[in-house]
Amino acid sequence: MGRTVAEKIIRTHLVEGEMRRGERIALRMDQTLTQDATGTLAYLEFEAMGVARVRTERSVSYVDHNMIQGDYRNPDDHRYLQDVAARHGSIFSPPGNGICHQLHVERFAEPGKTLIGSDSHTPTSSAVGMLAIGAGGLDVALAMAGEPFCLPMPALLGVRLVGTLQPFVSAKDVILEVLRHTDVNGGVGKIIEYFGPGVKNLSVPDRATITNMGAETGATSSVFPSDEVTRRWLRSQGRESSWVELSADDDARYDEIIDIDLSELEPMVAQPFQPGKVVRVSALEGMAIDQVMFGSCTNSSLRDLLSIGHLLDGQKIASSVDAGISPGSRQVLLEATERGALSKMIRAGVRLLEVSCGACIGMGFAPPTEGVSLRTINRNFLGRCGHKTGKVYLVSPEVAAASAVTGVLTDPRAFARDRGLEPFRFSMPETFLIDDGLFEAPSPEPETIVIRRGPNIAPLPEMKAMEATVRGEVLLKVGDDITTDHIMPAGAKILPLRSNIPAIAEHVFEVVDASFPARAKEAGSGFVVGGANYGQGSSREHAAIAPRYLGVRAVIVKSFARIHLANLVNFGILPLTFVDESDYDGIDQGDHLSLETEHLLAGGAFIIRNETKDRPIACKTPLGQEDLDVVKAGGKLNYVKERLAVPSF
Amino acid sequence: MGRTVAEKIIRTHLVEGEMRRGERIALRMDQTLTQDATGTLAYLEFEAMGVARVRTERSVSYVDHNMIQGDYRNPDDHRYLQDVAARHGSIFSPPGNGICHQLHVERFAEPGKTLIGSDSHTPTSSAVGMLAIGAGGLDVALAMAGEPFCLPMPALLGVRLVGTLQPFVSAKDVILEVLRHTDVNGGVGKIIEYFGPGVKNLSVPDRATITNMGAETGATSSVFPSDEVTRRWLRSQGRESSWVELSADDDARYDEIIDIDLSELEPMVAQPFQPGKVVRVSALEGMAIDQVMFGSCTNSSLRDLLSIGHLLDGQKIASSVDAGISPGSRQVLLEATERGALSKMIRAGVRLLEVSCGACIGMGFAPPTEGVSLRTINRNFLGRCGHKTGKVYLVSPEVAAASAVTGVLTDPRAFARDRGLEPFRFSMPETFLIDDGLFEAPSPEPETIVIRRGPNIAPLPEMKAMEATVRGEVLLKVGDDITTDHIMPAGAKILPLRSNIPAIAEHVFEVVDASFPARAKEAGSGFVVGGANYGQGSSREHAAIAPRYLGVRAVIVKSFARIHLANLVNFGILPLTFVDESDYDGIDQGDHLSLETEHLLAGGAFIIRNETKDRPIACKTPLGQEDLDVVKAGGKLNYVKERLAVPSF
Repeated sequence: MGRTVAEKIIRTHLVEGEMRRGERIALRMDQTLTQDATGTLAYLEFEAMGVARVRTERSVSYVDHNMIQGDYRNPDDHRYLQDVAARHGSIFSPPGNGICHQLHVERFAEPGKTLIGSDSHTPTSSAVGMLAIGAGGLDVALAMAGEPFCLPMPALLGVRLVGTLQPFVSAKDVILEVLRHTDVNGGVGKIIEYFGPGVKNLSVPDRATITNMGAETGATSSVFPSDEVTRRWLRSQGRESSWVELSADDDARYDEIIDIDLSELEPMVAQPFQPGKVVRVSALEGMAIDQVMFGSCTNSSLRDLLSIGHLLDGQKIASSVDAGISPGSRQVLLEATERGALSKMIRAGVRLLEVSCGACIGMGFAPPTEGVSLRTINRNFLGRCGHKTGKVYLVSPEVAAASAVTGVLTDPRAFARDRGLEPFRFSMPETFLIDDGLFEAPSPEPETIVIRRGPNIAPLPEMKAMEATVRGEVLLKVGDDITTDHIMPAGAKILPLRSNIPAIAEHVFEVVDASFPARAKEAGSGFVVGGANYGQGSSREHAAIAPRYLGVRAVIVKSFARIHLANLVNFGILPLTFVDESDYDGIDQGDHLSLETEHLLAGGAFIIRNETKDRPIACKTPLGQEDLDVVKAGGKLNYVKERLAVPSF
Repeated sequence: MGRTVAEKIIRTHLVEGEMRRGERIALRMDQTLTQDATGTLAYLEFEAMGVARVRTERSVSYVDHNMIQGDYRNPDDHRYLQDVAARHGSIFSPPGNGICHQLHVERFAEPGKTLIGSDSHTPTSSAVGMLAIGAGGLDVALAMAGEPFCLPMPALLGVRLVGTLQPFVSAKDVILEVLRHTDVNGGVGKIIEYFGPGVKNLSVPDRATITNMGAETGATSSVFPSDEVTRRWLRSQGRESSWVELSADDDARYDEIIDIDLSELEPMVAQPFQPGKVVRVSALEGMAIDQVMFGSCTNSSLRDLLSIGHLLDGQKIASSVDAGISPGSRQVLLEATERGALSKMIRAGVRLLEVSCGACIGMGFAPPTEGVSLRTINRNFLGRCGHKTGKVYLVSPEVAAASAVTGVLTDPRAFARDRGLEPFRFSMPETFLIDDGLFEAPSPEPETIVIRRGPNIAPLPEMKAMEATVRGEVLLKVGDDITTDHIMPAGAKILPLRSNIPAIAEHVFEVVDASFPARAKEAGSGFVVGGANYGQGSSREHAAIAPRYLGVRAVIVKSFARIHLANLVNFGILPLTFVDESDYDGIDQGDHLSLETEHLLAGGAFIIRNETKDRPIACKTPLGQEDLDVVKAGGKLNYVKERLAVPSF
């Protein structure tokens, strides 16, 4: 039977299990990446494992999130990451070098290889025919230590592309169209794989925009084949020797297929507060806007910047609009500078923000109160832009540029027509301006490296094994599609606390109920109840470790998002689902629940008592036996410590 | 008798008083400037005066400080400033346009005119032969309302320049040399005026670096003549018609004179935590550094950026150093981009930060714990970089660039010699890239402008008139050279609170004693005791209004810095000095003091009772009768309201 690209990569990396849908498989990981907002914790965990040097082909530690550096905390984090990389064998990418995903596609992603990264948008690198997966920091730390990554064998969702994008319609519109089909959970448990005659009409950076934002469907990864387009990209990056051809067999089978004719796509927009709330731009045309943000890992390739420059050339940003750009990498910034695109943007009045994740993760450039912000980023969750009242709409660079000039949501095709603008044609450089001079190789004398730890880098809290009886109140009851930005907000105030669990725990569920941390600590032990797709969004393991630190022992929901489910296991919070979803209505916040640990069974149902209402609730856990054992041990670090008998920290 | 440049400008603007040293004079103000960190309060005060349109020749409202915009607060402030400028007749300069002082020298400063600005570095504009003075926001608001600005007639400190700067020695070294002579209080009560044959060898941006940092001497302003160099500058900015010649008469008299031979200067550095702690770079050469910040209002002219590009061309920033640049204005950024200097910096590994005050005011890019930071800025006060443990050294762009490459404090002359580097020669453009497109003119239909006020823009607290007996404890006793950064810290956490007095008051004296706000509020009324040069540094009136809000009723010190003294008056805190400085030692924190308001006399001495120690303390106030009446009324807004009978807010 024929295989898809994803299946071919899985087959060559399979360490355990069989490639049957839903069955647990273990995959060898060739590469890892971390970024600074998740990386300090990942490296603290790696250090705790007592492994001297990373055991992957390549591990890269990027700094791109906490770039504001409002006090000593993040500069200290970055220094820690620099030292720990030098000592333990990772490549370090310092602040200013670029956003991890953009850089990884430029310099490290390789067809046919596997990559695990502590950032949910790690699948960006799958644009070159790689299998790149986002995960919690602990899973990445384990991969650095040479451990395989375990997951249920995903189903395959094929996206068949035909045709060619029309002028001023771009890759962002493709992934927004996919999201219109899948919404924010249609990819859960699946790998999205692109195929068909339209694929060759998309450049690698186009593909990267699509694989990047595939994360928003809940998919495990999004994969493109490795073809001549890939080869030319790698050649332009001086890496043609990494190229191998990789495409789906003609008789490959997909579990389901979405058909998209690129020629028929038009500009799209995702409305607040979900990336799946997609409509055509034409449906909202004329909506007044306050802010435009260009850039982020989704849309800051050279093509995107040149396209923005093309649209803004000779124009002025509307005085009612505040517009800014965060270029994706030093390479992109340099190319855009030397090709004149940067001048065009500055002349138009765009604020040149730093090369970083920036506003996408709420690190500055927040909209005003009730402000409408158009962004070329991938997420528009409640509060993610810096506060709850900001309304973020996700669009292509072309929609963003046209709208920045007019001051209202604008179809760039009409904008171009009105101004007699030629279609933008991007010709990929034969060779990019390649300069790896800021990447720091691991030290050749690692034993000489003293790791500097600032006062905000706190030791990981100890996690106790599960008690025989878990008892406590329902500390919070929430609805569907709760994101990790709800559970553990980011932004300029909270991100600097990422290496200090007791401190960051004070902000858990802040946008939902600011009294949560105090109530949870007072209760000492308790439950969270939620709806479907609980924990969608980023890979931040702080959304598990911080609630666990506050006393959350189990989460009972209708369904989980993949990475968050794994993070709950890793930090000893029991993930449960309702056998009968209508039982969700039979639990209220404040109810007292209890469960007997001995009744827990992988795969089977068991009963939790609602002591307040004196009624049983039938639950099950989505975990296999090993993961259940991990939870019972109080999390994976305890479990690994027991198994490998490595020193504690 | 001959007159100096400053005296000539004062004479043509004198509304009241006579030009005798120390005598109170009132000057008509032609122009005003505000920036966003002080501007929201200044415009709230202006609104409170009930004046419909500004009555100056030109008032400009800049946004350059609170550019991080971590949540809704600063974007709301900026929107408020945009609306209020449109309505009341000011020009608005939005975020991204540039730093107020750089922009004002480029586009608005005029020889022979007066300027008052709510930023202590307002004297920057005196580089073109203007008299530019920094003041509290209320004084600027009064100037906008057409009121003259009152001050004691300053003494004249002449700086006679001869010779020409040697390669890799630059304007920053001139002002550091001046500071070596004057320290941080040698300019108090004076205007520094530059003259002599060396003047013509300094460009207007060079002069602006010098007048900018003259603020650090405590001087009221620092003035250059308006000569052919000035004329060429104005021509290159398309403003030659503003030029008038202005130079000191041959028989002009200075109260004191410092002689500086530019040819003999060498690279200098100011050590933590005072800009007056100046030594030669050679004295500290080889000191390891962690961070380099280029830019700020002191050193981000095109010349400076091109000089940095010259030194960094083909070099790489040391991996132990984090280097970043905040260009001074959109014009400078654009010129540097199009002339290749930006590419050279990016290639070297410099982080391109936003066009803003940025790290200079602690808005990001803080050094790590105990980190050594070289900066081309003007202040290195304790905590100003974002935290107390960071150690900031103030240097020229040339010292910063050379040191960024070597990783240690480096003399740029040796650096250039070792690398065979030609001297940098700057030729001023015939015409700069002039684009005023981002400046927003006042609305032609002001009555149609609705001013949008975000929820963080709080009404000004009411201030009560002085009681017959002022009684309370000494809430804090501090030493010499206390800065406004000690009294009211800035930085990424606190600056967003600038339009909310109750909120920002919680941070008063945070770096000195974090318990101060709680203690002061509990006490309800009290005193602060300090040493010499109390309140040096910025013009922030928050350093007066916030302590007043907390209950501080009088400050007793050995001597005051000028702007802070005026701000204390403006917000109803009684400024007192010891008749006998040794009485400083006879007061302890916690002592209870009392004073009878009826005993207060302008000019005369009177007695405060130290009730705890049962002893009298002879004090006097540096205020004239009118200022004393202002304090008794509970501050200038009350006083003006009574006098002008304008509506309250």
